[in-house]
Formats: sequence, C-alpha cells, structure tokens
Amino acid sequence: MIIGIDIGGTTTKIGLVEKGRVIARSRIATTGHAGDHAFADALAAEVRGLAERHGATVSAAGIGAPNANQYTGIIEMAPNLPWKHDVPLARMMATRLGVPATLGNDANAAALGEWRYGAGQGYNDLLIVTLGTGVGSGFIVNGRLVLGSHGNAGELGHMTLVMDGRSCTCGRKGCLEAYVSIRGLRQTYAELDGDPAVLQEEGVRCIADAAHRGDAAALQTFRHAVRWLAVGLANAVAVTGPQRIVLFGGIARNGDLLMAPLREHFQEALLNIYMGRVDLTVSALPDDDAAILGAAALTTL
Amino acid sequence: MIIGIDIGGTTTKIGLVEKGRVIARSRIATTGHAGDHAFADALAAEVRGLAERHGATVSAAGIGAPNANQYTGIIEMAPNLPWKHDVPLARMMATRLGVPATLGNDANAAALGEWRYGAGQGYNDLLIVTLGTGVGSGFIVNGRLVLGSHGNAGELGHMTLVMDGRSCTCGRKGCLEAYVSIRGLRQTYAELDGDPAVLQEEGVRCIADAAHRGDAAALQTFRHAVRWLAVGLANAVAVTGPQRIVLFGGIARNGDLLMAPLREHFQEALLNIYMGRVDLTVSALPDDDAAILGAAALTTL
Repeated sequence: MIIGIDIGGTTTKIGLVEKGRVIARSRIATTGHAGDHAFADALAAEVRGLAERHGATVSAAGIGAPNANQYTGIIEMAPNLPWKHDVPLARMMATRLGVPATLGNDANAAALGEWRYGAGQGYNDLLIVTLGTGVGSGFIVNGRLVLGSHGNAGELGHMTLVMDGRSCTCGRKGCLEAYVSIRGLRQTYAELDGDPAVLQEEGVRCIADAAHRGDAAALQTFRHAVRWLAVGLANAVAVTGPQRIVLFGGIARNGDLLMAPLREHFQEALLNIYMGRVDLTVSALPDDDAAILGAAALTTL
Repeated sequence: MIIGIDIGGTTTKIGLVEKGRVIARSRIATTGHAGDHAFADALAAEVRGLAERHGATVSAAGIGAPNANQYTGIIEMAPNLPWKHDVPLARMMATRLGVPATLGNDANAAALGEWRYGAGQGYNDLLIVTLGTGVGSGFIVNGRLVLGSHGNAGELGHMTLVMDGRSCTCGRKGCLEAYVSIRGLRQTYAELDGDPAVLQEEGVRCIADAAHRGDAAALQTFRHAVRWLAVGLANAVAVTGPQRIVLFGGIARNGDLLMAPLREHFQEALLNIYMGRVDLTVSALPDDDAAILGAAALTTL
C-alpha cells in the first residue's frame, strides 16, 4: 500500500491508499512542533501507527505540500507553513519510513488525484483549480502534469488579474488569489461594507449563508468573485486550451451562488475559438480524498 | 525538400527548406484573389515554379497561418485574412501539390522554427512570443508544442490584461494584444497626445525614431508597453514555468527602448519562485526564416 500525505497550514492528513481508494485515514497538527524534524518524527510515528493498525505494508509515501518542489523534494520557504526555511521533506520522510518518498506541490497533487480518480479521468488536457485559503492549480497538457523547468509551474492564483490591484500574500499586487480565495471573498465583503457580524465566523460559508438570507453585500461578493474567476479561468484556457476545468475546494461547492453564474460568465469571457469547447465542473471526490489520492499518485509519476 | 509557407495578412512567403535552412524564397500577395480556391491555385503555381527553378523535388508542405487549426487542417474564420469562412487549406494544398500538407497556427509555426533552429534549441520548456500586428505565442511544455484539446492553445495575446480595458480585434476587452502589438503601441502613442505626424508612417519604427529624438510621448509609449508586457509574460510563466522566453517580431528588435527595460521589469513582475530562473531573449533567426522553417517543421510533428 501507498501512504498519501497532505500537508496543510493547520492539519496534515494521512491516508492508506490501495488501488485508487483511501482505505484508512489519520491526521496530525501541522503546527505546534518544536521544528521541522520534530514534525517529521511525529508524522512518521503516525504513519507507522496507521499502517500497523491495518496490518498494512507500506511500499512508498507521497506527500503534497504548499511550495513543494517535485524536482528537489524540498518545501521552499512556504509562507503558510510553520517553517520559513527550506525543508527537504522527501529525504526526511524516506529516512524515517525506510521507503521511497515523493514530495509534490499540494495543488499538483490534488490535480493528479482528480485526473486519475475523479472528474478528470480520461482527459489529456485538463485544468484543476483549488479554491481555498489560496488558489492553487494543476495543469495537465498532452497527458502529462506541467511542472515547468524548475518544478514550480501551475500557479494560476498568482497570475496578475488587476495591475496595481489588491496586495497578495506573495508580496505582489492584483493576483487572482487576492480576489477569489477565502481571504479574497472576505476582503470583498468587508470592502462592500458587509455586516461585521458575518465575518466573525471563519471561511466563506458565513458569507454564503448571508447571501442566502438576501444580504446585499454577500450577494455582490459572489457576483464579483464570479466575474474575476471567469476572467482568470479564461486566461488559463488561452494558454493551454484544456477540454475540462475541474474546480475543487469549499468555495466551489456553492452551486447557486458561484457555479451557475460562473458557467455563464466563463463562456462570455472566453476567446471565441474556445467558446462551448471547455467544460466547467466541480470535483467528484471528497476534498480530503483528492489530496490524499493525488499525493499517493505522486509516487507513480 | 520541404516547402514552408507562411501566410500573413498581406503577403504569403514561401521557402524551400533543406536540413533546417531556407535555400530559396518566393512570395505572393495574400489579398486580391477571387476567392480561397483562386488563392490556393496561385500558391500552388508559385510553389511549383520555385521548386522547378531549383530542380527540387518537394516531399511535403508545411503551412503556417493565422487562426489555423492543426488538428483539422482548417483556417477558422480568420479576422486578418481575406476569407471570413472556414478554409480547409491543408487538404486544398495537398490536392494541388500532390504531397502531404500540414497546416498550423502561424505563431506555433514560428515557435517551432525558433525551438528547432533558433534561440530555443535544446529547451524542453519554452515560450515564444511574436510581437507584430497581433501578439502570437507558442508554448513548449515537457518537450512538446502545446496545442490544447482543440488545436488552438497558446493565445497569450488574448489573455485579459486589463478588465474592461481597450477593445481588442477579437471583440473582447483588455487583451494583452490591445496593448503591446503594433496597433497597441500606436494607440498608446495617440492616447498620450503624441505628434500626429509621427503616426502618418505605418508600424512602430516611426514611434521608436521619435523616442530616439527625445519625443516624450514616444518614450512614454515604450515605458507603458514594457510594463504591460512584463506582466503579460509573468502571467504566462506562472502557468507553464518555461526556462526561456524568446521574443520575436519587429517590436522586439528595439533593444534600448524595449528589451533592456523589459528585462528589469519582467524580473520584478515575476512571482518570487520564478525570479532569476527565466531567461528573456530575442529571436536568433531572421523574422521571415523562423516562420518558414517553423512551417516546414510542422510536417515532422
């Protein structure tokens, strides 16, 4: 069996994967460890425990993490993880687990999971976009994951959507991520003078609930997000011409507020030669599973 | 020998290609024919004449054209060509010449030429951008040309740079092409209240000359173009992570006004993980040759 590991900003999820299915799960906190080595120790212990509880022999480990470079096996100065230096996690886990370990970008891992086991099955040209704390993306072109010359391609979230626009966590201005991530939607709602009580809850579910109650600023927040995302996706299509785009993450689960109007605006935003030729859909996998399955699939690339 | 044909809005260039070199050239007007079949007749006659004059046996023909779809062999409603309907030119030329004919997008053909024989040799992840009447692009990813699911990928010029920005010939607003093409630079110069006498000449050479004379609007025109192009290229890098970008076409030949400041602004526009990792250069081939060589290379894809 293969271990799939998805490292997030707060939680690290672990799954035992067999034949494209997650058959057992566990998790540890990403934060609160004395350092990167203490985290790796805790992660290895949890993996061994999970395997033992299920009588499984682990043959390889695949790890998805933000800012991970698949070519080097290093997490490169991830702004959303506790370690601000380079962490050679592939090597650290291979040593601890005694099996080959492959590290990959978390968005690429989710894309792989969706491509191999989800809504992207059978597509040679595919785009998977994760709408979460940030905006991640994985491009499949000519039947292969696009990694780029340095292993860090596929950063749709950091394409400039508005020159001199909103500040982004990357230090630049106007990135798509600054507009259509959880943070982006919350900022839009605040800028539209939305009800401060709504923002006391985390995430965007609170804004969606407000929209369903008829809150004007919340409805407008989703309308803006739809328009920005439509242009961002159309820009991606102009580069790689995918047949399908799969959206992934909590924001994409808002069918009426996001997906229905997005389908319409996306077609309008497309260059005419692509109109009606790119299909837009939502992930067919549970969010946790796509990331874990994709991480496991990294070991077979 | 292979015939390489580059169909432009006004002129169609023809070259006899042997071992990656153009050994003889000819040309006919693209416009002024009674229809697409009359054009194909004239083109076939010119090709046969060129081959006869050089005692060459032609084994295949490669044709680059705007809005050409490599999968279907059809020029699809090209706004810059005389025929507003679909023209199945690959089949039309194969019939007339009695050899296999391959049709491809002109920007992709130029990219192929640059990749096989020019400044892109040896790169597995490459972007070639043509700055001309429009802005064309060809992406090489994982050592293959990106055609997309419908054969029409690689339209960097039609990525939206400014939402609700300038009208583009494609019918949409704010495309990169509306800002950094010949048309775009001329529009910028006019919007900056430049000297109308300068614009009486065609192209952008007249604006470059004015800039060299110290004309403030002309200098500002290039400064704006540099800034827009830097962001456009950085956006492309965020998708495919190329190791090198090759710029091509007359505008790119302005070293002092365009390329020198562009190199600086481009690095600043890049997401930090790409900084210093993408090299920006100008085509190493004569403009006409890249297009003809690339068209010929289409036959070997």
